[in-house]
Amino acid sequence: MRKLSLLALAISMSATAIAAPKPNEPIQPIEPYEVTDAAKVELGKQLFFDPRLSKSGFISCNSCHNLSMGGSDNLPTSIGHNWQEGPINSPTVLNSSYNIAQFWDGRVADLQEQAGGPIENPLEMGFTHELAVDVVSSIPQYVQSFKNVYNVDKITINEVTNAIAEFEKTLVTPNSPFDQWLKGDTEAITAEQKAGYQLFKEVGCTACHSGPAVGANTFQKMGLFEDYKTNNPAEGVAGLTGEDTDRFKFKVPTLRNVELTYPYFHDGAYWQLEEAVDVMARLQLGRKLESEQISQITAFLKSLTGEQPSFTMPLLPPSTAETPLPEPFVKKAKE
Amino acid sequence: MRKLSLLALAISMSATAIAAPKPNEPIQPIEPYEVTDAAKVELGKQLFFDPRLSKSGFISCNSCHNLSMGGSDNLPTSIGHNWQEGPINSPTVLNSSYNIAQFWDGRVADLQEQAGGPIENPLEMGFTHELAVDVVSSIPQYVQSFKNVYNVDKITINEVTNAIAEFEKTLVTPNSPFDQWLKGDTEAITAEQKAGYQLFKEVGCTACHSGPAVGANTFQKMGLFEDYKTNNPAEGVAGLTGEDTDRFKFKVPTLRNVELTYPYFHDGAYWQLEEAVDVMARLQLGRKLESEQISQITAFLKSLTGEQPSFTMPLLPPSTAETPLPEPFVKKAKE
Repeated sequence: MRKLSLLALAISMSATAIAAPKPNEPIQPIEPYEVTDAAKVELGKQLFFDPRLSKSGFISCNSCHNLSMGGSDNLPTSIGHNWQEGPINSPTVLNSSYNIAQFWDGRVADLQEQAGGPIENPLEMGFTHELAVDVVSSIPQYVQSFKNVYNVDKITINEVTNAIAEFEKTLVTPNSPFDQWLKGDTEAITAEQKAGYQLFKEVGCTACHSGPAVGANTFQKMGLFEDYKTNNPAEGVAGLTGEDTDRFKFKVPTLRNVELTYPYFHDGAYWQLEEAVDVMARLQLGRKLESEQISQITAFLKSLTGEQPSFTMPLLPPSTAETPLPEPFVKKAKE
Repeated sequence: MRKLSLLALAISMSATAIAAPKPNEPIQPIEPYEVTDAAKVELGKQLFFDPRLSKSGFISCNSCHNLSMGGSDNLPTSIGHNWQEGPINSPTVLNSSYNIAQFWDGRVADLQEQAGGPIENPLEMGFTHELAVDVVSSIPQYVQSFKNVYNVDKITINEVTNAIAEFEKTLVTPNSPFDQWLKGDTEAITAEQKAGYQLFKEVGCTACHSGPAVGANTFQKMGLFEDYKTNNPAEGVAGLTGEDTDRFKFKVPTLRNVELTYPYFHDGAYWQLEEAVDVMARLQLGRKLESEQISQITAFLKSLTGEQPSFTMPLLPPSTAETPLPEPFVKKAKE
């Protein structure tokens, strides 16, 4: 009888911990990424970490989307070529395949198109696509990898950015405590986090922060009930359309791993998650949250930190006599 | 009988490939490092990759000793805080535990003392030891790791640099083709590489480039038979002693992985290994090598590329409200 009781208790505990999945929540779980072309992903990883895609030979994709630090640089705005101050906060590369479009203003459609941007941005990597292609084309191991993966003898920027994008697609963060809870593990998050999630829905955060990425699927005006005060000159979508109604309209950032991707907002002006929650509630929802409510929502947001990409640090093939030299400091006469 | 013949053939082939080890060569194999305290090494790895040990929050040890690129930055001199031009070529961190002393001028005794240098060098990471300690002390996961590894409640710079040094000690590159040859595999290197090694010994390179690190164990004057022409103002050991006889005396660099650690010499003025071999022979040995000799020695040098450290990219614990903020661009009034 004692054994039976224990069994009954175990069943009962199990029933407490595991409930049915929650398909009707406004947030859905992030799923693990299934790699279908490992060689392409490996090539993309090398390129993501290769500073020779920058003019200086010092800045790689990982410099500003650091995979040790939530796929971000944890700076208000990034440091670019010649220590230039970047114009806007560097968004996390984690789960970026879920973005409705890339960059804060959504000016490009997908990760491949995005990957080409910083390479040739004078404020960022300061290089040219032509020179980036010259670099990889001068290195036999890269040439062989592109041949194996894309069956090309002549590499173009398209293969370079495609491989980077294919690597970036693997950078998803599944199995966060919140996702485990969504999938039915009722004890995966704390009571405070559950309360925070209820509040998050009740006060209206989910109007914009929904879907698997908890955002990243719409553009919204920053500052609805109050203006957002900033010295940052970015105008958002209006910078593309010229439309006054698009002023300060930005892509809603993902809240996945938001604990790791400080400082917050497009100008990186707020370092604490509690501050960001307070500002969002006031400016976007017209609500002044109590300190305890902010704590609860913040606790919930921390349950969105998922399993970070885990991989072996790539080894980069050495340059050759044909590789264009980096120009970290001195401009050559030909320029 | 046929079977016996095949067996005899197999034994004969085996005898060709595997000879006795060569203990009396001027170069000895690099041995794998045996980790005794994995937690300490893991902590050191995190710190090695953590840009929060710099003022900007952007530069880590790995920025200039990039483990994807032979433990170097492949730049003539490094890029430091605020894009300042470093004074001297960044030496590889690979096998650096074999160095007789650290830095080109040997001004510090060991890796732990070295690790503290760049953190507070205004031209490099531009930080202070006090602030570096404040950063790690503000992050609960780091505090716990230091507690576990060093049994301290109050972290000092000594534990920070000790952990970094313990990680760096693991960065050895055993099993190069040349080491396999040294250990008796007569086919591990090519005929050209064997010829190059014979030349390397005959012309006198091994006078300075010997031991397991193929260098790194003496200080020598750069420019014995001819002056070394450079715009780099570094004076070598004379910068420490003030002695005229120490002018341009530098630590002989390791030639392990030299294929990966371009550009060469303390000023990083030469990008091609062939050029470096030519310059060394003329300036240090008073020999003008033929083009074929240079090719052979270069081929031998490439046989010194060993197994590169392979490890999982570290994840860094997030900052807290108590963490000193990085100052990438703006100096605060208190300074």
